[in-house]
Amino acid sequence: MLGYEEKLKELGITLPEVPSPAAAYIPAKKVGNLVFCSGQGPSVEGKLVYVGKVGAEKTLKEGYEAAKICALNCLAAVKNLVGGLDKIEEIVQVRGFVNCTADFEKQPEVINGASELLEKIFGDKGKHARCALGTSSLPRNITCELEMVVKVKD
Amino acid sequence: MLGYEEKLKELGITLPEVPSPAAAYIPAKKVGNLVFCSGQGPSVEGKLVYVGKVGAEKTLKEGYEAAKICALNCLAAVKNLVGGLDKIEEIVQVRGFVNCTADFEKQPEVINGASELLEKIFGDKGKHARCALGTSSLPRNITCELEMVVKVKD
Amino acid sequence: MLGYEEKLKELGITLPEVPSPAAAYIPAKKVGNLVFCSGQGPSVEGKLVYVGKVGAEKTLKEGYEAAKICALNCLAAVKNLVGGLDKIEEIVQVRGFVNCTADFEKQPEVINGASELLEKIFGDKGKHARCALGTSSLPRNITCELEMVVKVKD
Repeated sequence: MLGYEEKLKELGITLPEVPSPAAAYIPAKKVGNLVFCSGQGPSVEGKLVYVGKVGAEKTLKEGYEAAKICALNCLAAVKNLVGGLDKIEEIVQVRGFVNCTADFEKQPEVINGASELLEKIFGDKGKHARCALGTSSLPRNITCELEMVVKVKD
Repeated sequence: MLGYEEKLKELGITLPEVPSPAAAYIPAKKVGNLVFCSGQGPSVEGKLVYVGKVGAEKTLKEGYEAAKICALNCLAAVKNLVGGLDKIEEIVQVRGFVNCTADFEKQPEVINGASELLEKIFGDKGKHARCALGTSSLPRNITCELEMVVKVKD
Repeated sequence: MLGYEEKLKELGITLPEVPSPAAAYIPAKKVGNLVFCSGQGPSVEGKLVYVGKVGAEKTLKEGYEAAKICALNCLAAVKNLVGGLDKIEEIVQVRGFVNCTADFEKQPEVINGASELLEKIFGDKGKHARCALGTSSLPRNITCELEMVVKVKD
């Protein structure tokens, strides 16, 4: 069986550098064998690539892509903290906030950008509890913000 | 002392079938002896029964009923995962998002629909940390979305 | 090294009384050595001191002060539950919701009111994973609501 690092390569995915926190906190924190990730946005190499609200400036498809990038940033934060993706035992939980108009109703389809990626990389171990939510505003007007809880090996 | 399954019967409550996730995730995930539930909406037998925003199309009382159904759906997800409500040791945390107008201020009274039900079923073991929040939009325009963390027995 | 109770004194900070929950829940719940705090608002001695939305009635600076008070209320809830701040091993996670206008983008700067206080009190042990979010409404129209997860000693 391929390790997750190998799997990423096979999928042609490169993890981004861990984004520097915009403020007084750290990208991820480990307690016992759980890692709690900070809320991640759709940034690549320090630049926000999806800004604006779904239902207004952004489409569902763009939201989906934004959620995917948020998930990669969470994984990058975990990797950086524990020393490699192969230390991940399973994905526990994902909570995704979609910056959207008040009449937008397809937050689950947006957050699928993250969930489907996780299943592709981690298979059954990537199946997680999830919460998809809408909100009227997010930091820097990012299109999506994602939290992740991951279980790592001893 | 009655088991929780018996207690439910005594209260005349029937747990719904676990709603199928609207997307690429699972209804609940166990890690150690904690179970994290996915965000649940007010659906009964696959149909959403409370849709619309509190303060506009929905009243506080309807929001309260919606939160109660969300809590039952969380319990159904836990039961389905661990094999019965009597495996529950205690309710740890509830986080409730109320789909509402920007001037609505009574989210705690809405989420009480969930909290009071949990206390009725689980007594002191049902007392939980809680967060009641407002939001401008939720998936499928549901009136309320609820997350739950539960501790189960070994 | 000073204990955290001593450190608070040195900083001239007095913890407030634990606010009574507005509804059917408890201020904090311990499971294993994690304590989950309920969502706390900017109340002092039972009175809400920051009410209104950032970007409208409230400024960023006021939001920052509100977040600081929310964090103190979380700490008060933890202290009350476990018998003293010196039982705290580290701060694990902070999730802050800012009640704000849809065009407000500086939620991280608001929630820094909490994060910077935690670092001041707990030093490296205060560094946490974090999520800063915007929302269109909060209970009683409070300016900020904060959740905290803390690890306590055995």
